[in-house]
Amino acid sequence: MRSAEGGSGHSLWGGRFDEGLSGEMEALNRSLDVDWRLWRHDIRGSRAWARGLARAGILSEAEASDIDRGLTEVGALLEEQPGPAAFADEDIHTLVERLLTERIGPAGGKLHSGRSRNDQVATDFRLWGKEAIDGLCGQLAVLVEALAARARECAGVVMPGYTHLQQAQPVPVGHWLLSRAWPLVRDIEQLRFVYRECDVLPLGSGAIAGCPFAIDRTQLAADLGFSGVSENSMDAVSDRDWAARLIFCAAMAGVHLSQLAEDLVLFSTTEFGFVRLGDGFTTGSSLMPQKRNPDVAELTRGKSGRLVGNLTAMLTVLKGLPTGYNRDLQEDKEAVFDSVDTLRLVVPAITGAVHAMAVVRPRIREALRAEMLATDLADHLVRRGVPFRESHHIAGALVRMAEESGRELSALTLAEMRSVHPGFGEDVYRIFDPAVSVESRAVRGGTSARAVQTQLDALARALSSASGTA
Amino acid sequence: MRSAEGGSGHSLWGGRFDEGLSGEMEALNRSLDVDWRLWRHDIRGSRAWARGLARAGILSEAEASDIDRGLTEVGALLEEQPGPAAFADEDIHTLVERLLTERIGPAGGKLHSGRSRNDQVATDFRLWGKEAIDGLCGQLAVLVEALAARARECAGVVMPGYTHLQQAQPVPVGHWLLSRAWPLVRDIEQLRFVYRECDVLPLGSGAIAGCPFAIDRTQLAADLGFSGVSENSMDAVSDRDWAARLIFCAAMAGVHLSQLAEDLVLFSTTEFGFVRLGDGFTTGSSLMPQKRNPDVAELTRGKSGRLVGNLTAMLTVLKGLPTGYNRDLQEDKEAVFDSVDTLRLVVPAITGAVHAMAVVRPRIREALRAEMLATDLADHLVRRGVPFRESHHIAGALVRMAEESGRELSALTLAEMRSVHPGFGEDVYRIFDPAVSVESRAVRGGTSARAVQTQLDALARALSSASGTA
Amino acid sequence: MRSAEGGSGHSLWGGRFDEGLSGEMEALNRSLDVDWRLWRHDIRGSRAWARGLARAGILSEAEASDIDRGLTEVGALLEEQPGPAAFADEDIHTLVERLLTERIGPAGGKLHSGRSRNDQVATDFRLWGKEAIDGLCGQLAVLVEALAARARECAGVVMPGYTHLQQAQPVPVGHWLLSRAWPLVRDIEQLRFVYRECDVLPLGSGAIAGCPFAIDRTQLAADLGFSGVSENSMDAVSDRDWAARLIFCAAMAGVHLSQLAEDLVLFSTTEFGFVRLGDGFTTGSSLMPQKRNPDVAELTRGKSGRLVGNLTAMLTVLKGLPTGYNRDLQEDKEAVFDSVDTLRLVVPAITGAVHAMAVVRPRIREALRAEMLATDLADHLVRRGVPFRESHHIAGALVRMAEESGRELSALTLAEMRSVHPGFGEDVYRIFDPAVSVESRAVRGGTSARAVQTQLDALARALSSASGTA
Amino acid sequence: MRSAEGGSGHSLWGGRFDEGLSGEMEALNRSLDVDWRLWRHDIRGSRAWARGLARAGILSEAEASDIDRGLTEVGALLEEQPGPAAFADEDIHTLVERLLTERIGPAGGKLHSGRSRNDQVATDFRLWGKEAIDGLCGQLAVLVEALAARARECAGVVMPGYTHLQQAQPVPVGHWLLSRAWPLVRDIEQLRFVYRECDVLPLGSGAIAGCPFAIDRTQLAADLGFSGVSENSMDAVSDRDWAARLIFCAAMAGVHLSQLAEDLVLFSTTEFGFVRLGDGFTTGSSLMPQKRNPDVAELTRGKSGRLVGNLTAMLTVLKGLPTGYNRDLQEDKEAVFDSVDTLRLVVPAITGAVHAMAVVRPRIREALRAEMLATDLADHLVRRGVPFRESHHIAGALVRMAEESGRELSALTLAEMRSVHPGFGEDVYRIFDPAVSVESRAVRGGTSARAVQTQLDALARALSSASGTA
Repeated sequence: MRSAEGGSGHSLWGGRFDEGLSGEMEALNRSLDVDWRLWRHDIRGSRAWARGLARAGILSEAEASDIDRGLTEVGALLEEQPGPAAFADEDIHTLVERLLTERIGPAGGKLHSGRSRNDQVATDFRLWGKEAIDGLCGQLAVLVEALAARARECAGVVMPGYTHLQQAQPVPVGHWLLSRAWPLVRDIEQLRFVYRECDVLPLGSGAIAGCPFAIDRTQLAADLGFSGVSENSMDAVSDRDWAARLIFCAAMAGVHLSQLAEDLVLFSTTEFGFVRLGDGFTTGSSLMPQKRNPDVAELTRGKSGRLVGNLTAMLTVLKGLPTGYNRDLQEDKEAVFDSVDTLRLVVPAITGAVHAMAVVRPRIREALRAEMLATDLADHLVRRGVPFRESHHIAGALVRMAEESGRELSALTLAEMRSVHPGFGEDVYRIFDPAVSVESRAVRGGTSARAVQTQLDALARALSSASGTA
Repeated sequence: MRSAEGGSGHSLWGGRFDEGLSGEMEALNRSLDVDWRLWRHDIRGSRAWARGLARAGILSEAEASDIDRGLTEVGALLEEQPGPAAFADEDIHTLVERLLTERIGPAGGKLHSGRSRNDQVATDFRLWGKEAIDGLCGQLAVLVEALAARARECAGVVMPGYTHLQQAQPVPVGHWLLSRAWPLVRDIEQLRFVYRECDVLPLGSGAIAGCPFAIDRTQLAADLGFSGVSENSMDAVSDRDWAARLIFCAAMAGVHLSQLAEDLVLFSTTEFGFVRLGDGFTTGSSLMPQKRNPDVAELTRGKSGRLVGNLTAMLTVLKGLPTGYNRDLQEDKEAVFDSVDTLRLVVPAITGAVHAMAVVRPRIREALRAEMLATDLADHLVRRGVPFRESHHIAGALVRMAEESGRELSALTLAEMRSVHPGFGEDVYRIFDPAVSVESRAVRGGTSARAVQTQLDALARALSSASGTA
Repeated sequence: MRSAEGGSGHSLWGGRFDEGLSGEMEALNRSLDVDWRLWRHDIRGSRAWARGLARAGILSEAEASDIDRGLTEVGALLEEQPGPAAFADEDIHTLVERLLTERIGPAGGKLHSGRSRNDQVATDFRLWGKEAIDGLCGQLAVLVEALAARARECAGVVMPGYTHLQQAQPVPVGHWLLSRAWPLVRDIEQLRFVYRECDVLPLGSGAIAGCPFAIDRTQLAADLGFSGVSENSMDAVSDRDWAARLIFCAAMAGVHLSQLAEDLVLFSTTEFGFVRLGDGFTTGSSLMPQKRNPDVAELTRGKSGRLVGNLTAMLTVLKGLPTGYNRDLQEDKEAVFDSVDTLRLVVPAITGAVHAMAVVRPRIREALRAEMLATDLADHLVRRGVPFRESHHIAGALVRMAEESGRELSALTLAEMRSVHPGFGEDVYRIFDPAVSVESRAVRGGTSARAVQTQLDALARALSSASGTA
Repeated sequence: MRSAEGGSGHSLWGGRFDEGLSGEMEALNRSLDVDWRLWRHDIRGSRAWARGLARAGILSEAEASDIDRGLTEVGALLEEQPGPAAFADEDIHTLVERLLTERIGPAGGKLHSGRSRNDQVATDFRLWGKEAIDGLCGQLAVLVEALAARARECAGVVMPGYTHLQQAQPVPVGHWLLSRAWPLVRDIEQLRFVYRECDVLPLGSGAIAGCPFAIDRTQLAADLGFSGVSENSMDAVSDRDWAARLIFCAAMAGVHLSQLAEDLVLFSTTEFGFVRLGDGFTTGSSLMPQKRNPDVAELTRGKSGRLVGNLTAMLTVLKGLPTGYNRDLQEDKEAVFDSVDTLRLVVPAITGAVHAMAVVRPRIREALRAEMLATDLADHLVRRGVPFRESHHIAGALVRMAEESGRELSALTLAEMRSVHPGFGEDVYRIFDPAVSVESRAVRGGTSARAVQTQLDALARALSSASGTA
């Protein structure tokens, strides 16, 4: 602990120093407010370390048992705290060691043998990370299931599909909803990949150079539930790759959620009107009494900004760092915690909104324009041997003819059509039914009822396989 | 206020809603924890608005006076709170209006006439922003002065100057220190620019469409200390440009500080050893007893990451937003607050470190190699009419000759030099004094004692002019 | 020039090296393809430097005159080149010096006396930057004028104003257009600020330590059209702040353009239909014959991504750089060039689209819902003394009553209104005219015809003042 | 093709348009310069599509065979082109179809039946992406092997290990080199993950709604070498997740390379002097004849900026995009191409530098300070039962005693040591040998010769397993 002159903060070092930290430095240096949430993981890691030291003959059985008991007491004490405000310690590791030593005396001072805060925090953080990834995967899976449930329900409702936000071709509402589910399945798959990368034990790497005591790191990994052991001690203490990748996964998920949110904002406008969000996910205006605002979607979209920002932050921190552990790495945790917390807030809210929204079938039906079937018109000729590039041009000319005469495409007479190309048959009018159009696209991944059912089955399989990958 | 079924949160709307917010949505929606710090500005803005409404005949003098008194009481109450934890309100505006109405009754409900939270929060935020910018400019000026003070003190100490981190040419330590001060002066200048952009009143813009009451916005601006008034109500409520620019200024300052920090990390290594940081800004290791770590510099360098990240976050939030106010904009405040808080933490610490560091003159002297004077060697020939490109090649050959024979450049004999080019004179050895080299570069911005003094004067002028620009 | 073994690349150094660059390194090292566009500025800077050396007595008048003539010839030669493909030189500075020396012999080798590529490229880049900023300001001003012209034309057309993309209150189309012009005026103002920062001469700073010859840098600045002279040689060669700020300006402009683009995409959907983009700015589909896609707006929106990306790139490059010039800085130019080129491509296209778009008045008229006047309804009661918070609640209840009975708000009978609150007068129906609502908001920045005219005048003044600020 | 009035650009649409594209729009719209590099993939995809159409009965065998032959001719023609400058077409797809139709007549116009450029470009891009990922993995593996080779060679050389860039504990040079190899192995592993995500066929998804012809997409995937088939046509055409993830992988690799580069810059300074880069990877100065600059490392470090910037760019583009295909997605390719090209340039250069650098053993030996063994001193007492926290304090006090008396730690007498704590034994001096310290840390991942050998074996296994994962 630093000398008394050194301000009120507790630290684990100080033998070679004259003065304590300056006040400004203490404020900058303290990380307890951020790493407080790691206290359970810190205790768990310390408990395993004590067992390892005992096995290596550095602690007697009695000392190891005292430490274990002491850590249990420290855990009980911390469990009752509302937060770190009551403690002046530099970080969670310092706090736990101090509380332990206060409880069990000098044996507490033996716990840190052969260990550094560098490998300790790397271990705590990975223990936390594995739990966090599991949690996010679970929340995203619930959202995927919500989208799938709504898709099953609306599979048969035909809506305009858009490209360039212009009406393009009719699609089932379920197909649209599922198009927002697949990206989240990919996010889960990548989260599982990051889980595996995170699932490697750094403890036993010391400050950078490993441990001089005969610790069995494989046994340690087993005790702490890690599948693997780091292979290079210098890499192990400075490796934050899994954290950067987790932040990236969160940013990607944020981008995907922002796109779903954009659809909800758009589709719940007066002008589109395809969707009506539930009251529980809509807010009013302090000024305008009529407003029902899609705040759930806007906040979701907006939060994608901080998720991307955290990624930039993390990569900027890591850029150009020299060999070994550097204190800059302390910035890793806030970025990761913020990204995970943000998703934990956003995903349940948008999931609730997906469940609670009404699909307004009459407005959707009204919105369907015959022009969306111009491709089917061209395909009608393709089936009669006209090259597509030519039939595309013909259909374009008919669209223009209809537009100029103020009619829908389907209102053109057969004579008019034939005036542009003689190949049109009587049966051409069959194409002017959006449901027929949707059914005609029956390839895998297409819009027919059967294709959508196949897709739902594939989604269920993919979700279950992704969720079980760890 | 929302109906009782609507959970515990208070809101300013609800007449048209059946149900309250869902729990998940309430968690996502609440911003009080973030905007709490705006309560003084909210009260100040409301007080001015009440006066404006009275002048416009919407409030009676008695009502305006009740509101003023009530807001004073609300302020007194909030002053005593440790934070927002005790309040279930949606945001600071809702809280203040509720507390006001509880105190003065229905007249409190008249305060929001013609106003929306959109123009209200934009106003509060700018009131806060102007103070924050003033504060940052002040802190940065103190750091500039610290660098200048140390520069004056070390003006005469000659150190290696680097390019590509290779020894390049000798420079005074003061010159190096000042090279880290000028970027901060530019940062202050840009912060003053942003101040002027921030100094424009949005109040009176309503939700997006202005105010239907005869508010004198110019008077309102004067009351609140704004120099200008926004010219387009739709722009006024969604304009966060000043906030984005402030975040950018913070990121630039962060980058500049990261560069100063990099120098401190480097120069305080065992291998360089030019600088010894004070104990008050150095930390030890939990494992390695000998360590004196430059954490102040590493944390400063690391924090630049979040400052850059906040910028990405803000721009990503703003990208592609449609017309009018969108709730995504709520994300503006956390990014700005975090950037300002980060600088408020970092700048005083690094300022303290600059003051407290020792410049280790013997180590600096030892580090100076004669090879750094190879350019002076080439210039010696240039002064005798040899084209520089040729003299550069000759000096390069001599460097190589010295290196291959294991000597310093200055140890070559005149005969050896003349064997490469006959133009060398006896006086060539005069160049092998770093102090002579430094004095010879006497152009403006150069390294001679007089040039550095001119520079110090220019810095003082620039700082005083930048600080007074608002 | 490097020794012949060193591959085919020409360089300005090599006296101390045994071997040439490896092939992989030569590919990485070469910057000529990027800095080619600086050749005019390089020649201009070199011409001024030669004059400066002559004034300082380092060059004879004859040598200076030979160099001047030689540089004219080099310029004539480069003028005719399609690009840098024919040259193996390392960079533009090497190429120009080599071509000069080939033309005028050894005197060419005197040009680089007292100069380094570090101050040379910093100077070239600033000469280019000032032109680029002028150009961007001009293009943005043209876009602002296009928006203002369309605003004048549509000042009287009333459209729905949106918040949260829900219909909020009626506004003139001109007001919307101007809301997209003001941010661009702010961009111009900030570009002018950056111009002033860029307008400082680094030449005479050498590699990092200034110049040993008696160069009059103030005269040099005047010759090259710079308003100021850098004050610290170490700062001068590594300062890329103006470049980072220019990239930031471009990113902000990109964000603003993305928002205008978002409006155009949205308003040209079938569902909104407020705007019809011109054929010259619309593309079709290779598959769907009916499509008229707003690619001009989508590409504009998409390009904002790279503008933000370039900013991240630049700040990441600068983060943590140690003292002096570092080669990392070479990455500055591509980011700046790409940002400027992107705006040069996007701004004229979107300007053209603004000019060519049709405002579809019938669709806009149809879109106006009486619910947007609910605030006016509440204000009607406010004017009769009802506290706004109460009148807001009452209007909300009436919106709900109308909605539940399937009518517009304006279709409620007076009796129905009075059943909720007795304060409604016969004249309440006057509020159900969007034009009346728009005219009632007559404060500065508001929506009345006169307020919009005042705004147009203010915009013209702001634009002219911003454009003239340099 | 657009009507003749429409400027010179060729396009695949136009039947419904009056006018051609404006000049500004054509410049913005054209992507041929970027997507030119996809021509081989476009032809390959078209060839497979023609076979698919023939199997589905949309093309006769003769037509399919004509198309196949025609595409072969087009390929031969494009093979000979230096680039796209000669062609006025909008994009590579338009160019290929035009050239095809010019060769085989109307049958060429049948190729696009049931296909859109949306699924076409998504397919071309993935075909390219799989090759690019394979290439990057190969280049990174070569760099890993270079680091491993140098590590084997220097396994026994002991150097200072650093934390906070302060000397911490001795480590083998090989251990340091391997600490820079492991992150690259993780990069390869993640690239293989992205490969699997990329390895899914979108063709057959049409513009967004699938294909109305009976295309066997599984067969199509097999023909094109894809392992899977996309399951939702709307997702398939707008999914750029694999591209964003590839850009992220490149950014992470860039960050890792920037860290290796930082070490090389640092270790090749005069002050450290541990490493001497080869002449083939070092450049000189145009001004200072003595310079040998580590440009290879600086450029590598600098290039990490654009890699991070491309990631921000891509995520910003994707953020908030509405349903379906949006033209903003065109921006995907430049970001991906630039990231891949950057790594293709950087990785071979830094690999060459690793091979060519000299490890300067005498300088490394000189740099080792006894203070680095303070932890071993503390551990000496730990082995004698002193709690580590106490022994850490004792060792700190001895470091201070040595420092204050101007001696190395190893120069303290046993009496002096015992004056601080009686537990020191005669054998304490054995710890003052860095080689002993290194050998003592024999845990897995540690620094002993055997641990490093184990690590080398693990690296070889990991590399071979990662490289074979696809």
